[in-house]
Amino acid sequence: MNKKAVAIISGGMDSAVSAAKAAKSGYEVIGVHFNYGQRTQKKELECFENICKDLNIDKKYIIDLPFFADIGASALTDNSIDVPTQGIEPGVPVTYVPFRNGIFLSIATAIAEKEGAEAIYIGVVEEDSSGYPDCTEQFMKSMELSINLGTKDDTLIVIERPLVNLSKADIVKEALKLGVNLAHTWSCYKNEDKACGVCDSCRLRLSGFERAGVSDPVAYEID
Amino acid sequence: MNKKAVAIISGGMDSAVSAAKAAKSGYEVIGVHFNYGQRTQKKELECFENICKDLNIDKKYIIDLPFFADIGASALTDNSIDVPTQGIEPGVPVTYVPFRNGIFLSIATAIAEKEGAEAIYIGVVEEDSSGYPDCTEQFMKSMELSINLGTKDDTLIVIERPLVNLSKADIVKEALKLGVNLAHTWSCYKNEDKACGVCDSCRLRLSGFERAGVSDPVAYEID
Repeated sequence: MNKKAVAIISGGMDSAVSAAKAAKSGYEVIGVHFNYGQRTQKKELECFENICKDLNIDKKYIIDLPFFADIGASALTDNSIDVPTQGIEPGVPVTYVPFRNGIFLSIATAIAEKEGAEAIYIGVVEEDSSGYPDCTEQFMKSMELSINLGTKDDTLIVIERPLVNLSKADIVKEALKLGVNLAHTWSCYKNEDKACGVCDSCRLRLSGFERAGVSDPVAYEID
Repeated sequence: MNKKAVAIISGGMDSAVSAAKAAKSGYEVIGVHFNYGQRTQKKELECFENICKDLNIDKKYIIDLPFFADIGASALTDNSIDVPTQGIEPGVPVTYVPFRNGIFLSIATAIAEKEGAEAIYIGVVEEDSSGYPDCTEQFMKSMELSINLGTKDDTLIVIERPLVNLSKADIVKEALKLGVNLAHTWSCYKNEDKACGVCDSCRLRLSGFERAGVSDPVAYEID
């Protein structure tokens, strides 16, 4: 029997590459996706399904977290807060969702413990990113320790964060190397039909493609 | 304005005492309750509401976590696994819910960050307990560090676990000292009308009352 890994797959480029790396490492991959009331929930779920198909992932958990909307406090989960489109600014942006990755990793841990998986893959990026505090190497290291203290003695889980120190350009190159179909990924915070091209996430994605010297297969409003 | 604390209140004796301690420490308490598909969900929610009334807690979050039933792997969330009634045995029992407190603390962190609360109160007991790995002082310490690394720089959260080293007898005495109405708390894993008296949680509760020399106001099947 293959060793198993849980891959958190949002539907974005980073988590698709991270999951592809899990598959390439020989793991039987269990795909986990979270619907947390984010603006582009429908599109992201569609991308999750396509990414799983591309990677031959059969075992999937689609987890509904409606409470994120009650907590709000983020432009992604509260429609009264606008998604910024003026360019990336220093500090933690209003698109930060309080402790999202802490919650995602905790739920992934429960799934990993139940399934006997020995790794959780997460596509966090620290360097070339929006400055979210729950995307750092330091946080991942600490959560890994917490997870292993808070589960059974014979549960041993590694948090694999293969992109944490990569640039967005490196991630595009990795995707091409691994054969990830980037048309099946979605990064835009705002739209579900054509990407806006001006939210922080679109800007980071587009700059990655540009620096990698390839064009993005996804359609944008502004061309 | 008062400083705020988030209190995780399951409806059990321990979390009621823990929340009463938060209130006594002068915090404006925000009550958080989780419906996670556990057998006694309805009764526990009723107890949460009564405990909040007793402690004058107005601000409440009732968080639905239906995915716990999909994960299962515990006698509390999977009806095909029986709740043991033969007495407490060494090791982690089948009532252990994978990484439950990790998930609860992560969600409480998001709420605390949104609300500007500086503490999370949780009624975990290490010594005189069922041997769950997510109820230990070591895990709480590690999660506290993780939580502060994974949230904004100006978010500082202490995990208060005032009962972690108390015996169940001490907790009963604390409850009486603080004026906690123990008739408004529920511990039984199995029943919602009369407590079974023989599951691990009933046994721990009853032994606490016995050693404290007081009688339990809750009704039991076996008298």
